[in-house]
Amino acid sequence: QIIQLLPSLFLPQVLQGRRVLITAGPTQEAIDPVRYISNHSSGKMGYALAEAAANMGAQVTLVSGPTNLAEPVWSNRIPVTSAQQMLNAVEQASHDHDIFISCAAVADYKVKDVAAEKIKKSQHQMSIQLDRNPDILATIAQQIEKPFCVGFAAETNNVIEYASGKMQRKNLDMIIANDVSNKDIGFNSSQNAVTVLWPDGQQSFAQMDKSALAEELIRLIAKQFEQTRSN
Amino acid sequence: QIIQLLPSLFLPQVLQGRRVLITAGPTQEAIDPVRYISNHSSGKMGYALAEAAANMGAQVTLVSGPTNLAEPVWSNRIPVTSAQQMLNAVEQASHDHDIFISCAAVADYKVKDVAAEKIKKSQHQMSIQLDRNPDILATIAQQIEKPFCVGFAAETNNVIEYASGKMQRKNLDMIIANDVSNKDIGFNSSQNAVTVLWPDGQQSFAQMDKSALAEELIRLIAKQFEQTRSN
Repeated sequence: QIIQLLPSLFLPQVLQGRRVLITAGPTQEAIDPVRYISNHSSGKMGYALAEAAANMGAQVTLVSGPTNLAEPVWSNRIPVTSAQQMLNAVEQASHDHDIFISCAAVADYKVKDVAAEKIKKSQHQMSIQLDRNPDILATIAQQIEKPFCVGFAAETNNVIEYASGKMQRKNLDMIIANDVSNKDIGFNSSQNAVTVLWPDGQQSFAQMDKSALAEELIRLIAKQFEQTRSN
Repeated sequence: QIIQLLPSLFLPQVLQGRRVLITAGPTQEAIDPVRYISNHSSGKMGYALAEAAANMGAQVTLVSGPTNLAEPVWSNRIPVTSAQQMLNAVEQASHDHDIFISCAAVADYKVKDVAAEKIKKSQHQMSIQLDRNPDILATIAQQIEKPFCVGFAAETNNVIEYASGKMQRKNLDMIIANDVSNKDIGFNSSQNAVTVLWPDGQQSFAQMDKSALAEELIRLIAKQFEQTRSN
């Protein structure tokens, strides 16, 4: 714990006294008791943001889907499996948090009829019916007394344009756009490069380690959050 | 490596000079570049069997789906993702192995049309069409010069009856049946309890640690393998 404590001695305590809620990782949507649908999110970016926020003075709640990552020392981690469980945990926590950073790769769809018993492989072909999952970030951002809401947009083309539209449509305070057509960054990688948009500005960050990027992002989020509050 | 070497000094070298091929873990079946279907297999049982076989003198090849387990010191690990990749690796390796233990939780179905680009969440409902995957164990067990083939049967009811039918139908030399209706054992647990069947006998093992059970199973597999060869 001594080694983990060191960074906070050198980082500006820009989130001192603030409560930050972060989601990370994928969700798993059950097909039956043994099978599920998921995605390749490693959770690294969300965990790096949780650590950076804690090191900059915040009290952090990390709602995490299934990952292989160790629990960060200073965050209260709430483990969840499905998108619905993640929504429940986030809705319950959002009211007493100042900032919400939605970094999880939430499954867009869940299985319509989850089987209680393992499905037998009787047929040569099969189909799984899917229903849309709730949009966790949009749900929180539509609350009347909402926290400062930060989203991510992982796109393959027209990245800035699409991210800007998503920010407006979902009523976000900030959106972090990354181009996932570049295989060197993003999902499962330890590096990332992003452009951050907010209603009256934007800033790009060149490719760097996710932990270094997380510190830059938390500084920027803290700055915009304080500006919004002083308006 | 010194500590890992110790067990082999005390265990009987019942597989000295034998080559053992083992599959372990789940497979992942892609839906698109980011989403996939998988199952909750941890790979622990297969890895424990690989370690036990190596400690009892065998030269082990471990074809492993995605797991969080470290590569065993004495096995040649071939990492694979999908059932088709696992079949390819196993077919290539099976010809120069004496024993094949199929322990992986291979996905029964694969996605019919895997999307090259991330599927957009445009619709409220969606369906995924699935096709049956090849049966890896049955494919190997039907070869003319087949290795000694050992399968697993994870069942919730009529465990022995179903396992016995599966052994005959798939032309196996031995099958290891476990009752997965008991939540304390099997998938993701570190313990297991099984009944082993072969054409003219059977033996049950009470609940124990997967590594201890793996040693018992390898002894029994080695004994039956030698008996089959001497007939």
